[in-house]
Amino acid sequence: MYRVDLNCDMGESFGAYKMGTDEEILDYVTSANIACGFHAGDPATMRKMVTLALEKGIAIGAHPGLPDLVGFGRRNMDISPQEAFDMIVYQIGALYGFVKAEGGKMQHVKPHGALYNMAAKSRELSDAIAQAVYKVDSDLILFGLSGSELVKAGQAIGLRTASEVFADRTYQQDGSLTPRRQPDAMITDDKLAIDQVIRMVKEGKVLSQQGVEVKIQAETVCIHGDGPHALNFARQIRELLINSDVNVQAAGR
Amino acid sequence: MYRVDLNCDMGESFGAYKMGTDEEILDYVTSANIACGFHAGDPATMRKMVTLALEKGIAIGAHPGLPDLVGFGRRNMDISPQEAFDMIVYQIGALYGFVKAEGGKMQHVKPHGALYNMAAKSRELSDAIAQAVYKVDSDLILFGLSGSELVKAGQAIGLRTASEVFADRTYQQDGSLTPRRQPDAMITDDKLAIDQVIRMVKEGKVLSQQGVEVKIQAETVCIHGDGPHALNFARQIRELLINSDVNVQAAGR
Amino acid sequence: MYRVDLNCDMGESFGAYKMGTDEEILDYVTSANIACGFHAGDPATMRKMVTLALEKGIAIGAHPGLPDLVGFGRRNMDISPQEAFDMIVYQIGALYGFVKAEGGKMQHVKPHGALYNMAAKSRELSDAIAQAVYKVDSDLILFGLSGSELVKAGQAIGLRTASEVFADRTYQQDGSLTPRRQPDAMITDDKLAIDQVIRMVKEGKVLSQQGVEVKIQAETVCIHGDGPHALNFARQIRELLINSDVNVQAAGR
Amino acid sequence: MYRVDLNCDMGESFGAYKMGTDEEILDYVTSANIACGFHAGDPATMRKMVTLALEKGIAIGAHPGLPDLVGFGRRNMDISPQEAFDMIVYQIGALYGFVKAEGGKMQHVKPHGALYNMAAKSRELSDAIAQAVYKVDSDLILFGLSGSELVKAGQAIGLRTASEVFADRTYQQDGSLTPRRQPDAMITDDKLAIDQVIRMVKEGKVLSQQGVEVKIQAETVCIHGDGPHALNFARQIRELLINSDVNVQAAGR
Repeated sequence: MYRVDLNCDMGESFGAYKMGTDEEILDYVTSANIACGFHAGDPATMRKMVTLALEKGIAIGAHPGLPDLVGFGRRNMDISPQEAFDMIVYQIGALYGFVKAEGGKMQHVKPHGALYNMAAKSRELSDAIAQAVYKVDSDLILFGLSGSELVKAGQAIGLRTASEVFADRTYQQDGSLTPRRQPDAMITDDKLAIDQVIRMVKEGKVLSQQGVEVKIQAETVCIHGDGPHALNFARQIRELLINSDVNVQAAGR
Repeated sequence: MYRVDLNCDMGESFGAYKMGTDEEILDYVTSANIACGFHAGDPATMRKMVTLALEKGIAIGAHPGLPDLVGFGRRNMDISPQEAFDMIVYQIGALYGFVKAEGGKMQHVKPHGALYNMAAKSRELSDAIAQAVYKVDSDLILFGLSGSELVKAGQAIGLRTASEVFADRTYQQDGSLTPRRQPDAMITDDKLAIDQVIRMVKEGKVLSQQGVEVKIQAETVCIHGDGPHALNFARQIRELLINSDVNVQAAGR
Repeated sequence: MYRVDLNCDMGESFGAYKMGTDEEILDYVTSANIACGFHAGDPATMRKMVTLALEKGIAIGAHPGLPDLVGFGRRNMDISPQEAFDMIVYQIGALYGFVKAEGGKMQHVKPHGALYNMAAKSRELSDAIAQAVYKVDSDLILFGLSGSELVKAGQAIGLRTASEVFADRTYQQDGSLTPRRQPDAMITDDKLAIDQVIRMVKEGKVLSQQGVEVKIQAETVCIHGDGPHALNFARQIRELLINSDVNVQAAGR
Repeated sequence: MYRVDLNCDMGESFGAYKMGTDEEILDYVTSANIACGFHAGDPATMRKMVTLALEKGIAIGAHPGLPDLVGFGRRNMDISPQEAFDMIVYQIGALYGFVKAEGGKMQHVKPHGALYNMAAKSRELSDAIAQAVYKVDSDLILFGLSGSELVKAGQAIGLRTASEVFADRTYQQDGSLTPRRQPDAMITDDKLAIDQVIRMVKEGKVLSQQGVEVKIQAETVCIHGDGPHALNFARQIRELLINSDVNVQAAGR
């Protein structure tokens, strides 16, 4: 029997600013990556998200980002591995406060945006992130791009990892995501996107833009939570995975 | 045998900005209140302070403040009890990340500046703060101004508390501190300051500015960490307390 | 012939976070109060709003707030008059940069949220704000609540002022707004709201919640820019004012 | 007769955090680069610095940085030219508020830290910065590293520029500064540093670390303002320049 986790970035509202459809998407995903206040999120939003995820039985993860609120953590910053370590420990801890206050348990950590992308390519940065996660709680699962340095660094230090794939993104023949600035980066047809996911989960393969089949590990799929279409897509992908004999369950269960 | 804790606010540097004599003062105090990034402090500073305190065997506490970096958390803000709860949970959690990463234990929580002062007078705010501390970890000790609403709220919810006195501040006949804006607020003579502390610890009394003796509970004494004089004062008060048969030890030991 | 200005708070988006219907509402108002980055707004948003307002010929004003992004500048802070002066100068200047870069002219300044409300009652704070505005540019018009200390302070220093009224708020017999926490604070019926505005503009009177008529000066009316209803309301109030022989034009024209 | 400007970064304190010897160094320099709140500085500090510089007759410049307070603007960030334009306009404007409020005039703009270094190598970023400066006030002088893209971009758009050299840094044979991470990056001998400056000013040459003479334009020299040694060095370099028949005067005078 196959299995996969569906994860979603959430808790990315900030003060009076709302973002995403946090509440509704929780009915379809199995893991919630909750922003921790650096790129998005604030203490009130974090508390609400933790409470909601616990009520709905969704696994909770920290979603730490770069200290760049106005850039939403999407701009690369030239940080040192030590700075990465420190900001990861701080943010996991902050979310852990709410998880502990509500009597829950934290399952995983998934870096956000530019931090996620920089780590995918830098073993040095990934080692610092993996060490931060490991030292705070060695039971945490580290989420990283399938085939990335982050997944390797997590495994090297002894963490459980979950290799992440993206439903709506195309792949290159080296297994990397097609950069967003290229015209063929996104898959806009839901059917194609879901078929790609099911194949990645069941066959461990994806067809690259170069027409070559590439090996890929799909342990968790990133679902977007913005807009009404996101909800519809989440429901569809969940149903079609289940109909294809894939267990949809949190990475740590 | 009498006993008292000596605490100091620390870890209040921020990025390239240095504040306090964090390392040296640790040789004299028994509890370190570490800033958590809202009014002061940053992830790197927090890590260094936690490491240092653990090396020197000093008890670690969170020192959460208002989200007002430019005002150093000293300006009252009209926050709701729920907002106070959320910012306390977040900041305790953030420090907890470093304590856990370094294999240590957190002893206490002491709110900073305006948050401390507002809580001293507001039971509603104090209840929210006490609840935040209790929900994150019911073994934590809540530090509050002797006789304040914060100490009462902590006791009401079932937390251990430590009533705090100030060595270099004068008192009013209702047991409150003389406001800083009054000319007689500060005790500048070290001898007088230390005599006042010893009397508060051993007799539970302080002579108010009105000439009336006031009951006071002195379980922990706040020592300042800024400037070379601070170090000298800290050494003196520690020695004279010990010479007066007072055990100087962390609140939780 | 009567005249009145219609103003709207705008440019309150921040980074990836969108707020308000900034572009559309500009077709109905005559003055745009643009957030300056402390309670909301960011450099990119400020540039876009200034460009848009200049294209549509809408008068531009600075909308400075308290340094409280997560609280959207709505929480009172215990700032000194000097701090108020400094934050007003900084924020007017920042917006002025964009206005100058785009070849425009700044018409007015309207403090935001808690700063506006605190200033309404405190002459000391209002004097500091008025002085900041005057020293940066004595041609600027200071917007303040009708009857407030802010309007008085502006007039005392020699600034032109615009007394502001709110279309959708009820009034007390002392001329103040009914606090938002009271159930009868808001007028939800558009017809009633617009009738109240027309009467304030043409007769200088408003019926208070106590049933007593109160004198009021209505030189500028605050219109909200959030949601589709806001646009509809803005169009209606503009049309009905014009149909009632009221010139709708910017305060400074 | 030769001439050169001596400039210093200042106003880099923040809230309760003090940095630099802003007041004393003003007795020796001719241009003050005042931080604008993104990498350092706050409204109160900016006002004090502007007032002080005007009192002492020192030319005032904006010193805009990246939005990275905890990193002091020293970490490269992957910003777009448009983002650079916007943050420069905002920060020049903010300082302009204080300059206007105090009845002064702004002379120049010098980007800070990582923004300065990134601009030195990127014409695209430099064009955006130069355009921002030009559009806010085409009379401003743009300070940039001698031989950098920033100086070229400023000249191309029609701005006056000042080519900057560093007294205490060694140079490479391509005219660039030896990177700080290299052991021979800094000149620690005051005599050597001052001799190098005098030669750069009078002969337009510097001896590179490779032993080759390199052409360099020295219109303004950056002096550091931190520590007591900085004051002593500033006094010496000023005296020795004057003794060598070099007029020490602000770039715009």
